[in-house]
Amino acid sequence: MAKDKGPRRPRAETPKGFRDYFGAEVTERKAMLDTIANVYHRYGFDPLETSAVETLDALGKYLPDVDRPNEGVFAWEDEAEGWLALRYDLTAPLARVAAQFRNDLPTPYRRYAMGPVWRNEKPGPGRFRQFYQCDADTVGSASVASDAEICAMLADALEEVGIPRGDYVVRVNNRKVLNGVMEVAGVLDPADPEKFAHERGIVMRAIDKLDRLGEEGVRALLGKGRKDESGDFTEGAGLSGEQAEKVMGFVNAAQIVEDELRDGPPNPDNRMPGGMGLTLDNPHERTEHAGQAWNWAVLDHLMRLVGPTEVGFQGLQELGEISDLLKAQGYGPDRIVIDPSVVRGLGYYTGPVFEAELTFEITDDKGRPRQFGSVAGGGRYDDLVKRFTGQAVPATGISIGVDRLLAALHAKGRMQADTRGPVVVTVMDRDRMADYQQMAGELRQAGIRAEVYLGNPKNFGNQLKYADKRNSPVAVIQGSDEASRGVVQLKDLFLGAKIAAEATHEEWKSQPAQSEVARADLVAEVRRLLGQG
Amino acid sequence: MAKDKGPRRPRAETPKGFRDYFGAEVTERKAMLDTIANVYHRYGFDPLETSAVETLDALGKYLPDVDRPNEGVFAWEDEAEGWLALRYDLTAPLARVAAQFRNDLPTPYRRYAMGPVWRNEKPGPGRFRQFYQCDADTVGSASVASDAEICAMLADALEEVGIPRGDYVVRVNNRKVLNGVMEVAGVLDPADPEKFAHERGIVMRAIDKLDRLGEEGVRALLGKGRKDESGDFTEGAGLSGEQAEKVMGFVNAAQIVEDELRDGPPNPDNRMPGGMGLTLDNPHERTEHAGQAWNWAVLDHLMRLVGPTEVGFQGLQELGEISDLLKAQGYGPDRIVIDPSVVRGLGYYTGPVFEAELTFEITDDKGRPRQFGSVAGGGRYDDLVKRFTGQAVPATGISIGVDRLLAALHAKGRMQADTRGPVVVTVMDRDRMADYQQMAGELRQAGIRAEVYLGNPKNFGNQLKYADKRNSPVAVIQGSDEASRGVVQLKDLFLGAKIAAEATHEEWKSQPAQSEVARADLVAEVRRLLGQG
Repeated sequence: MAKDKGPRRPRAETPKGFRDYFGAEVTERKAMLDTIANVYHRYGFDPLETSAVETLDALGKYLPDVDRPNEGVFAWEDEAEGWLALRYDLTAPLARVAAQFRNDLPTPYRRYAMGPVWRNEKPGPGRFRQFYQCDADTVGSASVASDAEICAMLADALEEVGIPRGDYVVRVNNRKVLNGVMEVAGVLDPADPEKFAHERGIVMRAIDKLDRLGEEGVRALLGKGRKDESGDFTEGAGLSGEQAEKVMGFVNAAQIVEDELRDGPPNPDNRMPGGMGLTLDNPHERTEHAGQAWNWAVLDHLMRLVGPTEVGFQGLQELGEISDLLKAQGYGPDRIVIDPSVVRGLGYYTGPVFEAELTFEITDDKGRPRQFGSVAGGGRYDDLVKRFTGQAVPATGISIGVDRLLAALHAKGRMQADTRGPVVVTVMDRDRMADYQQMAGELRQAGIRAEVYLGNPKNFGNQLKYADKRNSPVAVIQGSDEASRGVVQLKDLFLGAKIAAEATHEEWKSQPAQSEVARADLVAEVRRLLGQG
Repeated sequence: MAKDKGPRRPRAETPKGFRDYFGAEVTERKAMLDTIANVYHRYGFDPLETSAVETLDALGKYLPDVDRPNEGVFAWEDEAEGWLALRYDLTAPLARVAAQFRNDLPTPYRRYAMGPVWRNEKPGPGRFRQFYQCDADTVGSASVASDAEICAMLADALEEVGIPRGDYVVRVNNRKVLNGVMEVAGVLDPADPEKFAHERGIVMRAIDKLDRLGEEGVRALLGKGRKDESGDFTEGAGLSGEQAEKVMGFVNAAQIVEDELRDGPPNPDNRMPGGMGLTLDNPHERTEHAGQAWNWAVLDHLMRLVGPTEVGFQGLQELGEISDLLKAQGYGPDRIVIDPSVVRGLGYYTGPVFEAELTFEITDDKGRPRQFGSVAGGGRYDDLVKRFTGQAVPATGISIGVDRLLAALHAKGRMQADTRGPVVVTVMDRDRMADYQQMAGELRQAGIRAEVYLGNPKNFGNQLKYADKRNSPVAVIQGSDEASRGVVQLKDLFLGAKIAAEATHEEWKSQPAQSEVARADLVAEVRRLLGQG
């Protein structure tokens, strides 16, 4: 039956979780990428662009939600090449490049990269399956000075794209400290590191979800598991109550330290639901009440918890060094803080991990105020290159989620894109197209954005509607009468819109927004109207 | 047995046909994309960025090599979304956008887009499966003024990225004229346009391959088919000798016109192997000997061939209008010419088609001189949006192959990338890392690209080797002695390299490339060495 209607038409839609970006959305993102690239470049990083497609084998399996069936990657089997996949981040391809070109690249190899990455995850509001990352990494340096530098550079980048100091915080933790906690909680056996790997994965993902699931949700995931609102069940780590308490005590460490440093009991209004008081605090206030002592107070507290384990002790030492290096360069806890609740979902981190969070509130879809949250993350991954070569290559880096950062600046009303359209040369007489093109050509020669109306010129009103839709500042009009007299009409569309909105009928009739000028003066007069005169 | 060697390691390689771009390769491409985007923007086009992934259905099947089994697209089946694919160009996604947002976009909709596209084709030397395109299209304008504008803009863009006038030519043809030839040759029946569609596809691809296969190869494809060097057989269109002659007469039209315009017989040295004398000619010479009359002479000749068919006549009329419009704007045949041998492989073109060719010679891998060839192509595709909506929407556009254009500029030695590396602050005393970071920080504050050496600092020679590999202009050195005296050593590495290459032993010993300066003067002195003083 449907056959009678002719061939089936394809649906004019992107696949779910993908979208299009128009006009200012594109130029704003480009400007942000350029700004961040400049910061990375100034720090000595060189650009690298890898292809979107890699062998699935080279990418490895390090995505946060490894419990999902398709493991979060868009992949397909190629006749000749085997399984291929779209990159899910810019780090896995870097590890492949570092291994492939290890004899040619400088050591350390400092590179930045930017571009889209793809995740085969369930899309949601503001959650897309293609998004931009802008990364910088140092491969071949074991020094914590590399980690400290990355954190400082991240703070610089955020400020240069327009997040003022005080509106963001870079939080630093160490996977080694987390491993110390795992050991203390009995899910890591230093003599058999592979044992309990599955359980540890669940524990880490649970800690990472603290702000989404709250303390109760995390406890459920540490224990028997958790059923979400839709009825889906997520497997738990199977920890006993006592084991889980140790993990929770660690997660809440920042809170405990804060309480200790404050006089009197904590103010519940000043804290995030998950209990991570630190990151909700106004950073200025934190600087004031804790001063440079904050990071050391946190480290001191953690030492009591995980110091007895070798790996935990080492992790805390590294954090101390990072904190000292940053302090010496003037990056105090108003910008960069030690925070034990930072996990980072990706499975490849082995040492320090970083996360940049915006600390200001925005209003969500339902009108409720909420923290904007994380816009960048990274850390040390000493084993990624080893996968290929067998030789350990230390590496560390950061990834800025550019689309989220743009959304944050929009939410704060801090984007002022130039959305002004081109000068539109209207078509009064379709036989004189070459004359109109000539006018547009002269304007462009003078650096003025301009075009001839190329739709059907029959209805002149449509031409002005078009100019309006394009947010055009000026329309150029020349009928045969004007042509014979050697003049053109210029319509100041911005002034015209203002008059239409505000003027009296008398003012309107006098048409102050339209003026007749000599054809020879076209460029000079348009320039004057554009405020470039 | 392999099991004893531990877990299997992934290969550190891209899939075949993909590659990585390092340093200047990335920044050069970015600069070119920015330049082209500025031209498009000045002409009134707005940016659009679609996602890399589309439904296979939305993309449609318009690739040149439709006879290949996988039809040239990277595609996979998604559980929820059905068949998805990587875009193979930027035009098919634009058609989808124009249909999806038809009620919101201005008419005409003028957009530019840039980014990678993917083709699942056999890779070869210089032929990759991911490459960049930079497109501009006007959707919703039936006027040939849109086509003419696109050609003019293409010429402007090529000149702005560094191809001087005379080193390129934009060739224009019309699919309607081709259809006229098909009708004359008996493979197009106006009363039943679907009939012979398969044969016409083969004929068009054959014409398009003229420069690769030569006249004989094309004749084989028009007839029974062709066996290539590897023994692979390509099906032919099955035309009779008489039918094939008509097509060949058309393809050689430019040659015939040239012969007519010249005094005496053609000079065989001055012509391409395929017989398309026009495009091999020095454009200046062509201007001289044929003047503005060239395009009209070609049109006049074609009129005799295909004028009797309705579609051919209409196509020639359009070409005449385009030629006149361009001439009026000063784009003569030294930049834009009518050339009947232009086909363009993509199946969706319906009217004027364009191709930009670089006319200078380069030396190929085997040391032989050859034409560089096509770097951009486009045309009118009036039915692409109709696929989705059922309503005809006229559209035209151009796609610049940015990677090929970059290769051309490299081949001509016209790229001068800034490959200067960062100032490297060396590490003499690893306990004073914070001091070194402080120095790098001060340099960056002053806008100077700088970094601290982050490898193992034990071997100082390695630090200087690193600086050398990074093409660093200056190394900063401060041991404990210098630190106690409040000074730093600055090593001018460019001067040092020059001295090492040219100086006498006495000059070398005096170490003119190294100087001691006060720590407080670090920034000023580095700036002086960089020539920014």
